[in-house]
Amino acid sequence: MRGSGISFGRTLVVAPHPDDEVLGAGGTIAKLSSEGEEVFVAIVTEGKPPAFDPVTIATTQAEAREAHRVLGVKETFWLRLPAAQLAETAHATLNAALSDLVRRISPQTVLLPFVGDMHMDHQLTFTSALVACRPHQSEFPKLILAYETLSETNWNAPYLSPAFVPNVFVDISEHLEAKLRAMRLFASQVREPPHERSIATLSALATLRGATVLRRAAEAFVLIRHVV
Amino acid sequence: MRGSGISFGRTLVVAPHPDDEVLGAGGTIAKLSSEGEEVFVAIVTEGKPPAFDPVTIATTQAEAREAHRVLGVKETFWLRLPAAQLAETAHATLNAALSDLVRRISPQTVLLPFVGDMHMDHQLTFTSALVACRPHQSEFPKLILAYETLSETNWNAPYLSPAFVPNVFVDISEHLEAKLRAMRLFASQVREPPHERSIATLSALATLRGATVLRRAAEAFVLIRHVV
Amino acid sequence: MRGSGISFGRTLVVAPHPDDEVLGAGGTIAKLSSEGEEVFVAIVTEGKPPAFDPVTIATTQAEAREAHRVLGVKETFWLRLPAAQLAETAHATLNAALSDLVRRISPQTVLLPFVGDMHMDHQLTFTSALVACRPHQSEFPKLILAYETLSETNWNAPYLSPAFVPNVFVDISEHLEAKLRAMRLFASQVREPPHERSIATLSALATLRGATVLRRAAEAFVLIRHVV
Amino acid sequence: MRGSGISFGRTLVVAPHPDDEVLGAGGTIAKLSSEGEEVFVAIVTEGKPPAFDPVTIATTQAEAREAHRVLGVKETFWLRLPAAQLAETAHATLNAALSDLVRRISPQTVLLPFVGDMHMDHQLTFTSALVACRPHQSEFPKLILAYETLSETNWNAPYLSPAFVPNVFVDISEHLEAKLRAMRLFASQVREPPHERSIATLSALATLRGATVLRRAAEAFVLIRHVV
Amino acid sequence: MRGSGISFGRTLVVAPHPDDEVLGAGGTIAKLSSEGEEVFVAIVTEGKPPAFDPVTIATTQAEAREAHRVLGVKETFWLRLPAAQLAETAHATLNAALSDLVRRISPQTVLLPFVGDMHMDHQLTFTSALVACRPHQSEFPKLILAYETLSETNWNAPYLSPAFVPNVFVDISEHLEAKLRAMRLFASQVREPPHERSIATLSALATLRGATVLRRAAEAFVLIRHVV
Amino acid sequence: MRGSGISFGRTLVVAPHPDDEVLGAGGTIAKLSSEGEEVFVAIVTEGKPPAFDPVTIATTQAEAREAHRVLGVKETFWLRLPAAQLAETAHATLNAALSDLVRRISPQTVLLPFVGDMHMDHQLTFTSALVACRPHQSEFPKLILAYETLSETNWNAPYLSPAFVPNVFVDISEHLEAKLRAMRLFASQVREPPHERSIATLSALATLRGATVLRRAAEAFVLIRHVV
Repeated sequence: MRGSGISFGRTLVVAPHPDDEVLGAGGTIAKLSSEGEEVFVAIVTEGKPPAFDPVTIATTQAEAREAHRVLGVKETFWLRLPAAQLAETAHATLNAALSDLVRRISPQTVLLPFVGDMHMDHQLTFTSALVACRPHQSEFPKLILAYETLSETNWNAPYLSPAFVPNVFVDISEHLEAKLRAMRLFASQVREPPHERSIATLSALATLRGATVLRRAAEAFVLIRHVV
Repeated sequence: MRGSGISFGRTLVVAPHPDDEVLGAGGTIAKLSSEGEEVFVAIVTEGKPPAFDPVTIATTQAEAREAHRVLGVKETFWLRLPAAQLAETAHATLNAALSDLVRRISPQTVLLPFVGDMHMDHQLTFTSALVACRPHQSEFPKLILAYETLSETNWNAPYLSPAFVPNVFVDISEHLEAKLRAMRLFASQVREPPHERSIATLSALATLRGATVLRRAAEAFVLIRHVV
Repeated sequence: MRGSGISFGRTLVVAPHPDDEVLGAGGTIAKLSSEGEEVFVAIVTEGKPPAFDPVTIATTQAEAREAHRVLGVKETFWLRLPAAQLAETAHATLNAALSDLVRRISPQTVLLPFVGDMHMDHQLTFTSALVACRPHQSEFPKLILAYETLSETNWNAPYLSPAFVPNVFVDISEHLEAKLRAMRLFASQVREPPHERSIATLSALATLRGATVLRRAAEAFVLIRHVV
Repeated sequence: MRGSGISFGRTLVVAPHPDDEVLGAGGTIAKLSSEGEEVFVAIVTEGKPPAFDPVTIATTQAEAREAHRVLGVKETFWLRLPAAQLAETAHATLNAALSDLVRRISPQTVLLPFVGDMHMDHQLTFTSALVACRPHQSEFPKLILAYETLSETNWNAPYLSPAFVPNVFVDISEHLEAKLRAMRLFASQVREPPHERSIATLSALATLRGATVLRRAAEAFVLIRHVV
Repeated sequence: MRGSGISFGRTLVVAPHPDDEVLGAGGTIAKLSSEGEEVFVAIVTEGKPPAFDPVTIATTQAEAREAHRVLGVKETFWLRLPAAQLAETAHATLNAALSDLVRRISPQTVLLPFVGDMHMDHQLTFTSALVACRPHQSEFPKLILAYETLSETNWNAPYLSPAFVPNVFVDISEHLEAKLRAMRLFASQVREPPHERSIATLSALATLRGATVLRRAAEAFVLIRHVV
Repeated sequence: MRGSGISFGRTLVVAPHPDDEVLGAGGTIAKLSSEGEEVFVAIVTEGKPPAFDPVTIATTQAEAREAHRVLGVKETFWLRLPAAQLAETAHATLNAALSDLVRRISPQTVLLPFVGDMHMDHQLTFTSALVACRPHQSEFPKLILAYETLSETNWNAPYLSPAFVPNVFVDISEHLEAKLRAMRLFASQVREPPHERSIATLSALATLRGATVLRRAAEAFVLIRHVV
């Protein structure tokens, strides 16, 4: 990443549900891995019967594995907490799961879902991840960023929940195709336009985020903390 | 606008500079005029020599006229205050110009540039227009909306200037083509991608704003006030 | 609602506890029903023994029925989740209860308690209702507004919790009497002045909200989303 | 003010235009002076011909003198900067005028118009007063509060300009009558209901602000700084 | 507190965990008790086995007793709710514990942890305490302040969680030594610099908060509500 | 800066008045120059007679030269706009001065005063610098940060002006001494404690900002934009 002015180093991407990591940071993952950085993904939840059916769960996880392979993810961790039930899961449990992971991987950079997303699983994942990344032990992540998730971030209450106003833009001009390819592999999650979780919308978002900083395509983030 | 749940009525679109009205509300203008509403545009400033050259000024104004014709604007008002110098113009002068116009047109709806745009002309136009729309005389606009302007709205300081987080979405699926056609007529203002003020970015924005509310294309606004 | 510029259509008012719907939107309900719109009310919680005594519960519900009759409510739904315990209720349960209701009624407009209210039941009702109103299926509410509740909205932490700064004002000059009459029917909930939940305060609030837009009486709301 | 927990001491009330001090703090002035505190008022601007006619100017100032007498103001200072033109007045001039006054009076408490009011004269008065009150010399005001002004504070842009969310409430149950009497003396400024600047609205506001803290009438403020 | 312009009266300091009250308000406690005010401390939680070991729990409580003696605390209340598990404790339970305490002590002033602290126990303690302090019964606290806690307040998400921007400064120039002495007694909680929870950092914070208002040392607070 | 994860590259520090660059970024300047980066400083204003006396002006500028030598600044630019009068200077003039400079130096990183500082010169410098850094031409700064200035940043209105909540921390453990030495050279600007602009306060701030991220000393910034 010569010339970019920043080196992400070992990177951990935390996703509440499979596909969030691709929607929010797929291009950045592809870019980093293409530059030789080690990128890890943690999928926090797993659908549990009876709310979710086992075949669907297996399908989604298989899709995630394929997508991660395309993006060059080094390893995927499945935390298997119950999907759509993080609010009913002991806070200490989620804290511990993420703290253990951060200790084990010791990432320099962590990418998180946005605390203002409408889904409580996203909010709680963000909050616990921040606890896991506290700068109080000798090793802690130096760079923490929050990504946006189509079909979550834009559906919360304007001016009443935290707004996603990006201040970090990662040029993914050379990696948009990989991102879209990875997303298409999530056949069970992709929707037809004009749904927000469609390939067309994801592509439009990349164009918009890129244009804001004179790039052909970008992913946008909100900086949480950077220690230099 | 049967089924849409809202009727804009006589509408005034205030643009600090020619093209802002198309970038921010071109599709809505086309929609309203196609439905028989009277839409007026006020262009607040005009480039003044020597900072701006007369040929360019004339070109831009001619482009605006063509664009307005395409969109079905009923009448365009040229307030001719000095461009990029509203901060040096007496506040009372801008207040008076906009107040006179509001009194004369007596619009039910007013569309304004966003107060958080990076350009001071946008900020001051918004502020003075709000004075002109005060609900203290028998007639005043019942609906006030602020539009977003590519190459202004996204370039201000995240979390330190007012954020554009839209809460009103106008479906322009049937009018996106008219909007893009009108924008292309602004040949002196349009830029090539990946500049934000390009047709490609404008189109991507319409796709994104639409998808957020399950529409093929939309323009997004922040509500300032609505009296029902 | 000719001249008002907006048509609410089928409307659902969601109240965490009986009387919130009258405090926050009683005048608007009366106005809509007088104009022929169908207005539904959902009472989310019910006091449960031993924290609440059965006679009081029955009394309050009887009061609600009377008040709704006065306001012209078409039908009242009792979701019977445990009052003051929504924080201990599975989030998915509240989501499902509200989603089912929205699907069943298919309202064009939804009125919600404010997410910044001090009571957790209000916050959680708002959040789950937003999930129920996601714009991702063919039918979804086009207009979502949050109302203010005396004895909740003004008691939260200034500048630290979301502030209620209204941008939608519904003229209830012709319906304030109905609203106050409905509130008086809630004998078990009304307090003597200077308590906030008194007839005198409710009346003063209507005067203030009205005066802000040059009307004799109004109810004020914060817009969450409007799709036009 | 035994039992109230706070002693305002020598107090300076800064008003951009005559009547703002009564609208925002008339009851508090009456209360303080009745308790033996010295209260000073500074009127920052004066209408200037030709925008304002000399008779009106003289009338308003005479009204102010009467109102201040009723409230027990010890002395009124007329800074005579040009009304509605503070934005065109050198910032250093307003800073100096207010700094001189603060030095001269050496107040313990200062009451200011709110920076989020829609009128630029209010915003600039607030900003310059804050400069005049900087805690960098041996004497400086220990308590700074901002008051609300009907017909200014509620007309700015919700969520885009600073919101008035009060955290200090002064019980004026015994002084509301004096406040309303003083306001009525401003015959040139008072409007008929439902205008916001009417006696009825001012009275409703006092009821609402009082009820929020279980008092019959109150004036509400936003705390800027308190050094204890 | 002659000359300070404020009298705190009977004061209750609420701490989620032992040491928060010293980190955030130790100097103010020492000041108030030295001036003859009665100061009470409530420790909300207690570590529970197996997450916390009994010896550590006993040690910390013994340290707290010593520290409170140094600061002149009149009485300490141990609410013994489970530490790091308030999110799993029924909201009504925490509400009741704090409401009972407020009713019993009937404090004029209450000092709370900050709602924007990163620890959920802090957030929930703040929220429930606000319920306990509602201004709806004849007696309620007239002054509510939130303190900052090193190793919690600065570690939350900038611009996405409520920011601690102090507006009340208590001069503790004469009481900083007592505060640091009390903190040193918390041997189990103090860390070596450059950890945030070190004596050096606590001292630096006092210098900074003091300098902002031209004092040698201060504790800073955010005002929640003040009824005068 | 191996290991830090970020390379600032050519850096421009913009200071409204001499000493702001040292107060806010002196340690970072020393660090960057010690690592071989080219650091430029632009002093925007100059005191003008009669408000400022020529001897003082010359003294301050000489102090600045010495301080910059100590910090390793490569070149200092004096824009000589009138101090304390930027609000009376044509906005286009400040825009042009900063745009020319950015074009000439072509910095990768720009450090700015904070837009929420109480001094209008700081606010306007920030705003114009943002215009000068727009991402719309082939070359533009990829990293923009805002620094804090003791005796400005903490004196604005809490919750009403933009809050400085840092998200970027630069470890200056090895450069704090150089920073303090440079500040001491500003003999005309340094004040005795407990003034905020004292060496003791500057040192305490470095300790606090460092401790937040487990470093002995740090300078803290708010990120405006980062293009990677």
